[in-house]
Amino acid sequence: MAEQLSLAAVRGALIREEDSIVFALIERARRPRNAPAYYAPDAGTDDGRSLAEFFVREAEALHAKTGHYEKPEDVPFFPQDLPSPLFPIKGYPKVLHPFASSVSVNDAIWKMYFNELLPLFTVDGDDGYYAETVALDFACLKALSRRIHYGKYVAEVKFKDAPQDYSPLIHAKGTDALMNLLTFKAVEEKVKKRVEKKARIFGQNVTLEDGVDKHEGSADDSECKVNPKVLSELYDRWVMPLTKDVEVEYLLRRLD
Amino acid sequence: MAEQLSLAAVRGALIREEDSIVFALIERARRPRNAPAYYAPDAGTDDGRSLAEFFVREAEALHAKTGHYEKPEDVPFFPQDLPSPLFPIKGYPKVLHPFASSVSVNDAIWKMYFNELLPLFTVDGDDGYYAETVALDFACLKALSRRIHYGKYVAEVKFKDAPQDYSPLIHAKGTDALMNLLTFKAVEEKVKKRVEKKARIFGQNVTLEDGVDKHEGSADDSECKVNPKVLSELYDRWVMPLTKDVEVEYLLRRLD
Repeated sequence: MAEQLSLAAVRGALIREEDSIVFALIERARRPRNAPAYYAPDAGTDDGRSLAEFFVREAEALHAKTGHYEKPEDVPFFPQDLPSPLFPIKGYPKVLHPFASSVSVNDAIWKMYFNELLPLFTVDGDDGYYAETVALDFACLKALSRRIHYGKYVAEVKFKDAPQDYSPLIHAKGTDALMNLLTFKAVEEKVKKRVEKKARIFGQNVTLEDGVDKHEGSADDSECKVNPKVLSELYDRWVMPLTKDVEVEYLLRRLD
Repeated sequence: MAEQLSLAAVRGALIREEDSIVFALIERARRPRNAPAYYAPDAGTDDGRSLAEFFVREAEALHAKTGHYEKPEDVPFFPQDLPSPLFPIKGYPKVLHPFASSVSVNDAIWKMYFNELLPLFTVDGDDGYYAETVALDFACLKALSRRIHYGKYVAEVKFKDAPQDYSPLIHAKGTDALMNLLTFKAVEEKVKKRVEKKARIFGQNVTLEDGVDKHEGSADDSECKVNPKVLSELYDRWVMPLTKDVEVEYLLRRLD
């Protein structure tokens, strides 16, 4: 990403992230809701944290040991006390303002994922396979967080393309005006249509019997592993607004 | 799985695992080979283990703490000294011979994955993002291992359907005869065709410009994120033979 900072490259990366998000949701949808994975246990197990929180904290510590979270789009959900890398790290070109690494909307992503999104694409039920479930949740959270924090690159590219438009708004701390400048309704509608289509294609049950792959629209959405409409809703209500929050937060400090 | 042990249910599970394997390979193919992740470092870092081995060992320890590796299809690559679960585990119905949990071909999967498969579907190169790379490898290894160790259920179902055919071969320790009895060339050809088709569908670049989704075959395979032929080769050379190794190993102890 960082190597070739252009709007085309950033857009390409965002489009590729859509596939990862759709794959991760399809995988999580293999298991039912499994609510006990999200309750804080009575006591005795890791400070009363839920299994999901325990897993994400520990997994992030492990990822940090291997050198993850060096790129500005890889943002941990629990950044406190992450261990240092145990293996040598290859540096990456720094193309963003140094402030970029501290921009995070992960608290909002966490709440959105568990409180709003999960009930939309998982079946109510409890099969007891909580360990597998929380590992699949972590994959969804990571993919969503990375997509949303790519907003830092989007903001940098847009700023560089038109500093004369952005600088006065940044100096005036014009959050709403910045948000307006970053919003392109027609583009957003295309993104929503594309992720919906991806859910339809990647979530179909592929059989050899069909000579041809399913037309878009001819497949019954109820046969898809994740309802395609959930993807357009996810992008409309959360992914794109949170990405723009990241962009605004980044831009407000861009001239510091 | 265990709840409804029938050939149809086992086949359904195997088919669903194909999607997970294709998704995992597509995700890994985002990064180039990144060979340094697989070298043993000079010294000083975790007993001279490669980053990949370090990550898989630590990730498996974490998964074990959350209660993973209780199902016979979930087999760790490094079973020695795995920690005990820290969270309560819901039992699963035991439908296999107790010996099932000790059947593992993970050493062969590990060697196959790193030495043979990885060069087939990743681009030669080094982008330095080793932490992300080994996490993606772990996802591939887990998906392949689970698919292959489902062979335990396949074997149990086939044995239960025709104990009169299997028992004499088991008593005679007839490995080759058992392998013959478990081999259905026509089924294997169908599986290879299906995984190839899945790679073509799930690995395409979805755009809104196509009014219809791509026909099988009309898409250029070189545009797919993973070459579909690699999937049929993977299944032909390794997944199906290793699954049958699991089946034979399970059956040889089925009457103990």
